[in-house]
Amino acid sequence: MKLWQKDKTSLKEVEKFTVGRDQEMDMFLAPFDVQGSLAHITMLESIGLLEKNELEILSAELKSIYKRIQSGDFKVDEGVEDVHSQVELELTRTLGDVGKKIHSGRSRNDQVLVDIKLYLRHEIKEVTEEVKNLFDLLIAQSDKYKNHLLPGYTHLQLAMPSSFGLWFGAYAESLVDDVITLQAAYKVINKNPLGSAAGYGSSFPLNRTLTTTLLGFDDLNYNVVYAQMGRGKAERIVAAALSNIALTLSKLSMDACLFLNQNFGFISFPDELTTGSSIMPHKKNPDVFELIRARCNQLAALPNDIALSTANLPSGYHRDMQLLKEILFPAIQRLKDCLRMAQLMLSNISVKENILADEKYKFLFSVEEVNRLVLSGIPFRDAYKKVGLDIEQGNYNPQTTVNHTHEGSIGNLSLDAIRKMMDGTLATFQFSKSEKAIEKLIS
Amino acid sequence: MKLWQKDKTSLKEVEKFTVGRDQEMDMFLAPFDVQGSLAHITMLESIGLLEKNELEILSAELKSIYKRIQSGDFKVDEGVEDVHSQVELELTRTLGDVGKKIHSGRSRNDQVLVDIKLYLRHEIKEVTEEVKNLFDLLIAQSDKYKNHLLPGYTHLQLAMPSSFGLWFGAYAESLVDDVITLQAAYKVINKNPLGSAAGYGSSFPLNRTLTTTLLGFDDLNYNVVYAQMGRGKAERIVAAALSNIALTLSKLSMDACLFLNQNFGFISFPDELTTGSSIMPHKKNPDVFELIRARCNQLAALPNDIALSTANLPSGYHRDMQLLKEILFPAIQRLKDCLRMAQLMLSNISVKENILADEKYKFLFSVEEVNRLVLSGIPFRDAYKKVGLDIEQGNYNPQTTVNHTHEGSIGNLSLDAIRKMMDGTLATFQFSKSEKAIEKLIS
Amino acid sequence: MKLWQKDKTSLKEVEKFTVGRDQEMDMFLAPFDVQGSLAHITMLESIGLLEKNELEILSAELKSIYKRIQSGDFKVDEGVEDVHSQVELELTRTLGDVGKKIHSGRSRNDQVLVDIKLYLRHEIKEVTEEVKNLFDLLIAQSDKYKNHLLPGYTHLQLAMPSSFGLWFGAYAESLVDDVITLQAAYKVINKNPLGSAAGYGSSFPLNRTLTTTLLGFDDLNYNVVYAQMGRGKAERIVAAALSNIALTLSKLSMDACLFLNQNFGFISFPDELTTGSSIMPHKKNPDVFELIRARCNQLAALPNDIALSTANLPSGYHRDMQLLKEILFPAIQRLKDCLRMAQLMLSNISVKENILADEKYKFLFSVEEVNRLVLSGIPFRDAYKKVGLDIEQGNYNPQTTVNHTHEGSIGNLSLDAIRKMMDGTLATFQFSKSEKAIEKLIS
Amino acid sequence: MKLWQKDKTSLKEVEKFTVGRDQEMDMFLAPFDVQGSLAHITMLESIGLLEKNELEILSAELKSIYKRIQSGDFKVDEGVEDVHSQVELELTRTLGDVGKKIHSGRSRNDQVLVDIKLYLRHEIKEVTEEVKNLFDLLIAQSDKYKNHLLPGYTHLQLAMPSSFGLWFGAYAESLVDDVITLQAAYKVINKNPLGSAAGYGSSFPLNRTLTTTLLGFDDLNYNVVYAQMGRGKAERIVAAALSNIALTLSKLSMDACLFLNQNFGFISFPDELTTGSSIMPHKKNPDVFELIRARCNQLAALPNDIALSTANLPSGYHRDMQLLKEILFPAIQRLKDCLRMAQLMLSNISVKENILADEKYKFLFSVEEVNRLVLSGIPFRDAYKKVGLDIEQGNYNPQTTVNHTHEGSIGNLSLDAIRKMMDGTLATFQFSKSEKAIEKLIS
Repeated sequence: MKLWQKDKTSLKEVEKFTVGRDQEMDMFLAPFDVQGSLAHITMLESIGLLEKNELEILSAELKSIYKRIQSGDFKVDEGVEDVHSQVELELTRTLGDVGKKIHSGRSRNDQVLVDIKLYLRHEIKEVTEEVKNLFDLLIAQSDKYKNHLLPGYTHLQLAMPSSFGLWFGAYAESLVDDVITLQAAYKVINKNPLGSAAGYGSSFPLNRTLTTTLLGFDDLNYNVVYAQMGRGKAERIVAAALSNIALTLSKLSMDACLFLNQNFGFISFPDELTTGSSIMPHKKNPDVFELIRARCNQLAALPNDIALSTANLPSGYHRDMQLLKEILFPAIQRLKDCLRMAQLMLSNISVKENILADEKYKFLFSVEEVNRLVLSGIPFRDAYKKVGLDIEQGNYNPQTTVNHTHEGSIGNLSLDAIRKMMDGTLATFQFSKSEKAIEKLIS
Repeated sequence: MKLWQKDKTSLKEVEKFTVGRDQEMDMFLAPFDVQGSLAHITMLESIGLLEKNELEILSAELKSIYKRIQSGDFKVDEGVEDVHSQVELELTRTLGDVGKKIHSGRSRNDQVLVDIKLYLRHEIKEVTEEVKNLFDLLIAQSDKYKNHLLPGYTHLQLAMPSSFGLWFGAYAESLVDDVITLQAAYKVINKNPLGSAAGYGSSFPLNRTLTTTLLGFDDLNYNVVYAQMGRGKAERIVAAALSNIALTLSKLSMDACLFLNQNFGFISFPDELTTGSSIMPHKKNPDVFELIRARCNQLAALPNDIALSTANLPSGYHRDMQLLKEILFPAIQRLKDCLRMAQLMLSNISVKENILADEKYKFLFSVEEVNRLVLSGIPFRDAYKKVGLDIEQGNYNPQTTVNHTHEGSIGNLSLDAIRKMMDGTLATFQFSKSEKAIEKLIS
Repeated sequence: MKLWQKDKTSLKEVEKFTVGRDQEMDMFLAPFDVQGSLAHITMLESIGLLEKNELEILSAELKSIYKRIQSGDFKVDEGVEDVHSQVELELTRTLGDVGKKIHSGRSRNDQVLVDIKLYLRHEIKEVTEEVKNLFDLLIAQSDKYKNHLLPGYTHLQLAMPSSFGLWFGAYAESLVDDVITLQAAYKVINKNPLGSAAGYGSSFPLNRTLTTTLLGFDDLNYNVVYAQMGRGKAERIVAAALSNIALTLSKLSMDACLFLNQNFGFISFPDELTTGSSIMPHKKNPDVFELIRARCNQLAALPNDIALSTANLPSGYHRDMQLLKEILFPAIQRLKDCLRMAQLMLSNISVKENILADEKYKFLFSVEEVNRLVLSGIPFRDAYKKVGLDIEQGNYNPQTTVNHTHEGSIGNLSLDAIRKMMDGTLATFQFSKSEKAIEKLIS
Repeated sequence: MKLWQKDKTSLKEVEKFTVGRDQEMDMFLAPFDVQGSLAHITMLESIGLLEKNELEILSAELKSIYKRIQSGDFKVDEGVEDVHSQVELELTRTLGDVGKKIHSGRSRNDQVLVDIKLYLRHEIKEVTEEVKNLFDLLIAQSDKYKNHLLPGYTHLQLAMPSSFGLWFGAYAESLVDDVITLQAAYKVINKNPLGSAAGYGSSFPLNRTLTTTLLGFDDLNYNVVYAQMGRGKAERIVAAALSNIALTLSKLSMDACLFLNQNFGFISFPDELTTGSSIMPHKKNPDVFELIRARCNQLAALPNDIALSTANLPSGYHRDMQLLKEILFPAIQRLKDCLRMAQLMLSNISVKENILADEKYKFLFSVEEVNRLVLSGIPFRDAYKKVGLDIEQGNYNPQTTVNHTHEGSIGNLSLDAIRKMMDGTLATFQFSKSEKAIEKLIS
């Protein structure tokens, strides 16, 4: 048995183990940490825990750090544990004891809580913008290709005529519902946990309503125990909303890979966007779609990953929460990458013409034929029998035009209605409200 | 090698395998199937695909079936595959050929889609009501026990004073955020997929806006391909929202089990609500909370279960979807059970008095002491040093009253604000809109 | 606020909630409960806690109950909580106070532990037998169709020639690795937890080695705390092994659905095993494969479901464990169904001939062409250039025979080696050892 | 709508997106890539596809690269996609055209497959060694603390006496079962996929049995389609085995956090291994255990993450597989960290003496009392009644010694038997066989 000692090497390993990837992950939080601190000190001054001039010099220094963060000129020094410590170190280095005063009435716990809320709020806005870009593209492509028919499958079996108008439009509409869930996540995270301290509040007469206004939050996480309980929960709810977008992209990618397969052959992409082989000229590997699919499926696993990390933990802070950063934060960046890559691919898609002219697709029109006869006055039962008989006797020569008129059908894609749903949902976010508050705070 | 034959026994096994638990699961859908059919035939008549008198006799018969479903006097006959077939069978048995006409312009696919949407809409309402009941109880208990202090833990270590006011209130506020996500799920599912047929629309001139109004839906799933894509997705989004409620209950249950543990001993329950042993008089097994925790953790796994079943399936219907019913539908009933059981337990909870009087909790007040000195004018650094020294020298005799005043703290639980948030969220559901439509449809 | 009362209705609801689906689930355990009791009383007599004649009458009665269970003539009475209580009730009803003596030195906890171990041991054997049947069929079909080529895809793009010999054989070999993990699960569960009592052992001088022998276990779960910790863990490990088999079936089903799709059209099945439509004669819905896929994907989620239910629970029994029965036990039955359905389908598969004769597949042979030239002495670089040029200039006329000779290739399927691996793995289970012990115990 | 262009910026983004974290992740594979190449060229020479002298110079260069990898003096150059390309680049840079010849009869697909198998084989050995270290420590601590009693809980309620001997020993025995599943994973991955090319084999007369011997594999992945199917599956099976170890550590950590909590107060650690506060002298935050728990719970989610990424993909390579590296490879390193941290903590644990002397634990002995009376000849029913009455009337003064003698109980921990089980399992790995082969190959 190898006996472990508490010697320096071991303790260094402990430090490495407990710090983990924090230095890297906290860079995502850096600007929001400064925002939170600015709001906090403004509030401290208002309740007499900071002098007016202390507030001024602290504010000036924090804003200077903020600018350096924005310009990429800020990093966590060797030996400093995380971004929060780095900011404090810099404050104290420059301002001396005053620098330490930003900590009154605040704990590392609510500091991180508010950082994460501000960060996620920011990211939801960015994701939403990319979703909107993709949505607009899908709507445009749906309109452009509204007359390009393709086979519709059920059970992966040829079933009925479909169209690229329908196909593009379906994914556009899917994004609308995804954004609805993202909006709920936004509402959940757009509440202020600052002032909850270590999860049990403070005996200082904090004014949490003031920091709520300063940071542009919609409301407070009132109950301080609940504010702390929000750690892990906020991440999970955001991850669940993002996973809806991810699964829309994943399904789109699966369709694209299938349609690009030579047995289908419905779409193609420029050579620069696929990988091939000089002696297999047919080969157009859809690597981008495969990687979107894989990235998005990984993202779809995130809510469960978070649930498994936090399940059955009693209330109160546990350090387990630290590790959620590294599974969620990079995943958000990757989702934005996937949204951009999907746009690049779909902007450059080529859709094959006259797909349904191929003999093998002619039975797709059998239901249309029956309906056509019904609409011309023949009872359904007779119409059905006639088409069945025609097919059996080789007399089946269907009309291969499709005349659908109802809402959301091939002939009536309802793109305006879908666009209206998206716009209506986006309007409820009210991003500008929080943006204005932040702008005011840091300028 | 055992060679399998397509003989009768095998084919019966195939039938058993493919029917699965449908007869049982479809009973959840039965009333909604009739609702959907009533709307559909009303629309069919409006576009000339049914005669006025056909509509009348079909309506009458469907309403009669509906009443039998409501009164528990309806079942799927031996040998009939599912509820949808049973309803049709009864119509045809009574009305002959007219009975078959309800199928014009509808596919089994959109019929099931609309049934599931109506069912989930109904269940979300029921779950919301139980959540509201539990919320009200938690708020009341928070108020009742606002002066009962208990230790607050971080890292499961004694940290600061907390209170039962905070503890109950935290779970109340947690439910507010959970309901926000449920409301998003409600928005997603409160859209009409009827008229999407097999996922590619119909050549009949259906009026989908009419069925949307008749069924009290907020809007349509316009794109027919997307309407079909909603299968699996609607279930997953609802499951994700329900899992938020479930994880709130699960954490509450873990706390309760811990607090009931004799090393904590903060709460107790009447003997009828725990299980014990005559020779272990200390034993009060919290079976109900353990089972709530387990049921809720199972529910928390549901969104992932659904994602795993549907991942990487291309667009278009796949029969895989059938099996989602049996993992989601009973889980919803169980969540309602858990919500009711939590109410029963928490209605009958006893909270121990003067917990913090125990010597072992005295260091909980050290931060309070420091803050008290600071507020009396002593600089933080000196206050901190003094308390540290007092502790070291055995002179630490803290005041054990807690004087927190800020929003959401022990002394200011903000119950009204939390209640207002809940009421505001509940108001956005507008359940009555759809209820009125359904009432009109079936009466 | 609706105040909950501890009245009779509420308490009945509590009972319903805590009993859950136990009456149904425990029927899976019934025969194994009797086995465990028989071993336990034999041991009790050996250490003097039962008289010889008491052992005799208890044994006789238990064996009679066992026979009734085997013949389907046993059920849990109305108002009786579970199978364990039912067995005791019957013993006491028939034998009076002696019936209660089976409980000495045993707790409900280790009783259920041993029941589950015995049940899982039995089920692993049954699953293994069905896997073997499917394996044999796959090997036979691989051999039968070894000369039927089909396209091989990478990135879902046409890549190289493959064969049905390879395709069937791949799934056969996949099952070998799956069985390796199942064998590990078998080793883990084939250890005796009986005698661990409530997880902290007993002050009676139990002879656990004797019950281990009587029940045909390989070894003991020695440490009584660990024996209890095995609850949940045994289930998870078995579920993980079963999920490997499930994912093999799921992938096979996805392939089958794709190959049956008309754009591929590589395979077909008799009409009785697919569902179709009289006016869509092309339609052959692969419902059975879709449902195998869905069932198996649900099973693949099981280890995670169990992990989420048990994560972060401290050691010692928690009632949460009860609910694992209903997610695992029926799933095992369903996996056996899926294995049987897969056999039925694959026994009746038709494989299309000359698939690769189609012009669109000719580039599959380009790598073969290059290699052929290389083997005839032309340097690779030149060979590659030549084939590339031929393709470019339209002079590409590949040989469409495939001449692969290495281990596991189209021309050398290594079926014997694969069969040998399977047989070697199966031999390590040594099912007969435990079967003989059980036979002796109950006869 | 923002239209995406295939301009240089976009294409650079595509490259960045598709390369992902490969350069970093592939460093894990670097030594194994060289091992695979060495085996491959040795085989190529044996079948006449390389000249003897070509083999010699290629071998020499590869071994030189290997040494640089081992000494940390190897990296992927800017602009080079991955490790495989880097190795080839260096070979070609040094040796010219001969360098390219290592590719004959090999595809990037089977090259990566064999790299991953070799890497995982290596890691399983490393993990096993750390598990063994922890196991030895647990056994030693179990023996050392065999007489230190602590309360045993069921339902988190005080139940029966337990001991630290049992507690440490339970986790030791848990690791035995975990290693059994790891050994199965080892068997599954210790098979040679090299020679499967792109998943459909090669027309070159490869000798796969030779590379199997050279690389010290136990056997082949014969079927080339299955060899490719092993991608994703091997990772998932290894992850599932690692997750068993992880969940053992996670539960141990939860126990440790609870036992360190002041309401329990059963254990303590030196200040250097916990974090505290100068004014909260009671505070000993178990950060290391919390992070072990969180890391291990993340690892427990891995098999599901992998399943979700690969579910429903048809057979044949998909690029999705690339991303599995970044979720599995770092996780393995973290598990080893966790195993080492657990050793450090448990080496330095202090166990409180005489815990059960506290009055509040006296009812733990009630079952002992009953059994003691029974063993002294009093019928169970009377013994039970007497103890119950004593308790009721305040006459309950239990003996607080524990006299358990059966296998695995407090008085008979069976540590030798548990150690024997572990040794027996470890012996089946036969690591030396593959190590010797690799040593021969690279020297």
